[in-house]
Amino acid sequence: MSNPLRLGIAGLGTVGIGTVKIVQNHAELLARRTGRAISISAVSARSRTKNRDADLSAYGWEDDPVALAKREDVDVFVELMGGENGVAKASIEAAIAADKDVVTANKALLAVHGQELAVAAEAKGRVIRFEAAVAGGIPVVKALTEGLAGNEIRRVMGVMNGTCNYILTRMENAGLAYAEVFEEARQLGYLEADPNLDVGGIDAGHKLSLLASIAFGTKVSFDAVELEGIGRISIDDIRRAADMDFRIKLLGVAQMTGRGLEQRMSPCLVPADSPLGQLQGGTNMVVLEGDSVGQIVLRGPGAGEGPTASAVMADIVEIARGCRVSTFGQPATSLADPVPAKATAPAPYYLRMELSDKPGALAKVATILGEEGVSIDRMRQYGHADTSAPVLIVTHKTTRDAIDHALKRLPATGVVVTEPVAIRIESV
Amino acid sequence: MSNPLRLGIAGLGTVGIGTVKIVQNHAELLARRTGRAISISAVSARSRTKNRDADLSAYGWEDDPVALAKREDVDVFVELMGGENGVAKASIEAAIAADKDVVTANKALLAVHGQELAVAAEAKGRVIRFEAAVAGGIPVVKALTEGLAGNEIRRVMGVMNGTCNYILTRMENAGLAYAEVFEEARQLGYLEADPNLDVGGIDAGHKLSLLASIAFGTKVSFDAVELEGIGRISIDDIRRAADMDFRIKLLGVAQMTGRGLEQRMSPCLVPADSPLGQLQGGTNMVVLEGDSVGQIVLRGPGAGEGPTASAVMADIVEIARGCRVSTFGQPATSLADPVPAKATAPAPYYLRMELSDKPGALAKVATILGEEGVSIDRMRQYGHADTSAPVLIVTHKTTRDAIDHALKRLPATGVVVTEPVAIRIESV
Repeated sequence: MSNPLRLGIAGLGTVGIGTVKIVQNHAELLARRTGRAISISAVSARSRTKNRDADLSAYGWEDDPVALAKREDVDVFVELMGGENGVAKASIEAAIAADKDVVTANKALLAVHGQELAVAAEAKGRVIRFEAAVAGGIPVVKALTEGLAGNEIRRVMGVMNGTCNYILTRMENAGLAYAEVFEEARQLGYLEADPNLDVGGIDAGHKLSLLASIAFGTKVSFDAVELEGIGRISIDDIRRAADMDFRIKLLGVAQMTGRGLEQRMSPCLVPADSPLGQLQGGTNMVVLEGDSVGQIVLRGPGAGEGPTASAVMADIVEIARGCRVSTFGQPATSLADPVPAKATAPAPYYLRMELSDKPGALAKVATILGEEGVSIDRMRQYGHADTSAPVLIVTHKTTRDAIDHALKRLPATGVVVTEPVAIRIESV
Repeated sequence: MSNPLRLGIAGLGTVGIGTVKIVQNHAELLARRTGRAISISAVSARSRTKNRDADLSAYGWEDDPVALAKREDVDVFVELMGGENGVAKASIEAAIAADKDVVTANKALLAVHGQELAVAAEAKGRVIRFEAAVAGGIPVVKALTEGLAGNEIRRVMGVMNGTCNYILTRMENAGLAYAEVFEEARQLGYLEADPNLDVGGIDAGHKLSLLASIAFGTKVSFDAVELEGIGRISIDDIRRAADMDFRIKLLGVAQMTGRGLEQRMSPCLVPADSPLGQLQGGTNMVVLEGDSVGQIVLRGPGAGEGPTASAVMADIVEIARGCRVSTFGQPATSLADPVPAKATAPAPYYLRMELSDKPGALAKVATILGEEGVSIDRMRQYGHADTSAPVLIVTHKTTRDAIDHALKRLPATGVVVTEPVAIRIESV
């Protein structure tokens, strides 16, 4: 049996305490699986006196996580504080400078500073692992970095924010408006302090940018993720989409095209009977597509104490076993500068609009779509009681540009009552 | 950049050639991801002159895989010949004796000889990796051994034989009898030379026994897997199950109970709207349940050149990166002797029978079930044209023993026309 692997855990929220519990409850199991004891030397959090669901009396205490990161008796610095700057960054930098390996669940930090931190760690021969930062308990970083390492990756997709998926499925199942379910989610504590991190797609965008870096061998470029939140999705859209056998998901898609790296996190329609379409509630799903393997789908809990701590432990076990995988799957200095590309790949689109109930209204819309090269696959006009009629159109594959040009011309027809909604239909 | 990692590949069927192609086509990608070149020193197969879909002229040739395994210029012996004894075993033993690491896709060999081979390899400090042996392209061995290493595993389930799932879903979708679809599958080349390996559940049982060993830290015990094939599943069962919102799958389940290790590979009913229930055609799915992570579902192609070669490459990359994980996730000498347990955990059962159309027939059956402690959840009697009526019963949770006792007493009632069918309903 080798030397024990000694942890310093910074941040004692649910994930930190979950990690402590696994180390305590599964000491024997972990030792068998790694060939060495895994121990906790010291911990750090904002308040020492707070009542926590684990006995910490055997561990050292540091008020300052930077001091924890530098301790002689720490081999792996486990950063579970969060925040894209400040003490999380400073303490990881201190850990690397002091020759420690790092395990973190901090997607925001890595999405912004991942490249510089990985370069610094690798220059010192240390690793930064972040399984818990993406899709909670699903071991997707490992699946992509290791399980699919023989593949050129074609596309990465995923529903990676459980709160958004909860909101969208709850709207559909209960027939509630966005604002109502948003308020429910807030009261249930599902939303971040800044809810825009969830519903604006930022949190999921962070995760997507990390997976894209591994998948395509490019530097993390969160700034280049096209972000669109779910705030504009109405219960009408959800119902109409369901009529056409689609569901609406906040879907992340990253793919390398001839023009560059596409990364978008936005509401998309997916077939209702696809694995992504069937995903209900807070569960996460990631779809990985490689040239040899085809399509792999991973599904599991995207958050919570147990699942996230499970992912943190996967990284700790990997380090304990002596596996040294580069942060993004290849040396950080070899990662390419991505050329960001707008989503140019043609796709079918869903269009919803209200047309005034005048003869020829539909013809005017169809004419403009045709002139812009947007061809109609399916169209439905709904019965109505007032002076305007809901109209749904599913187009054949077309570009976002063509859709936007057409939408810009529609007001001039005088028959479009409210601003039309256009949502991409992702082929899954 | 470190020394190149030099492969010797034995077996040049679809998987072997698929592996050669990845090494050739992704040389630069693999070098970036592993920090070293991955090269092929020599290959071996039955016929040297056979026309193959890859240029092998740059590689050495060995008629004898044992000679290949011993070559000085081979670091990793890649065994893709198959067969649970004979030359596959001899060559892996030779490779270990000559201090080589081993990558294999050979589930049959490992299910029978995995323990002794792992002990031999670990005594020499070598690794045997087998991602490709289970569920094709799905990186499930990694997910379980590494991704969920912080968990006590509760249960492993899976649809791991694509041919059986193809047969069952094709029966349902086309309304065909088992014999018809079996013949179709044979003609399409989906069946092994000995079809019982597929439809008898043996191949899937091999895979389950390997996952169970990792999951529960026990020696592989394929002999203890309760095997039941799909040959007795009728189109009637498939239709009746669908009426009750179930689908029939050849489902592997392994779990550790108070009585010991349960391993079974048998037809089960699962809810039609569950991920397992929705699985169509040749796709595989594995469900992993851990005490911290909850439930993780992995879905992907279970066979074929690309997917299986992708899994082989995952192991090669792992070795190239210097990760040395024990064959079954902990030292083979530390694996426990499992106590095999029959499936004793109570479950609901599906019962189908034909009852003669006499007054009181149903009452007689219900009475016997009641006397044996089998309580009825749902019951359906179907309309009929002849002298007997199809009857379906879904029970509440009960034991297989109780069901068997009841079934044994039914003939004495004189109202049961054909032998009743009983299928476990697995909660997923």
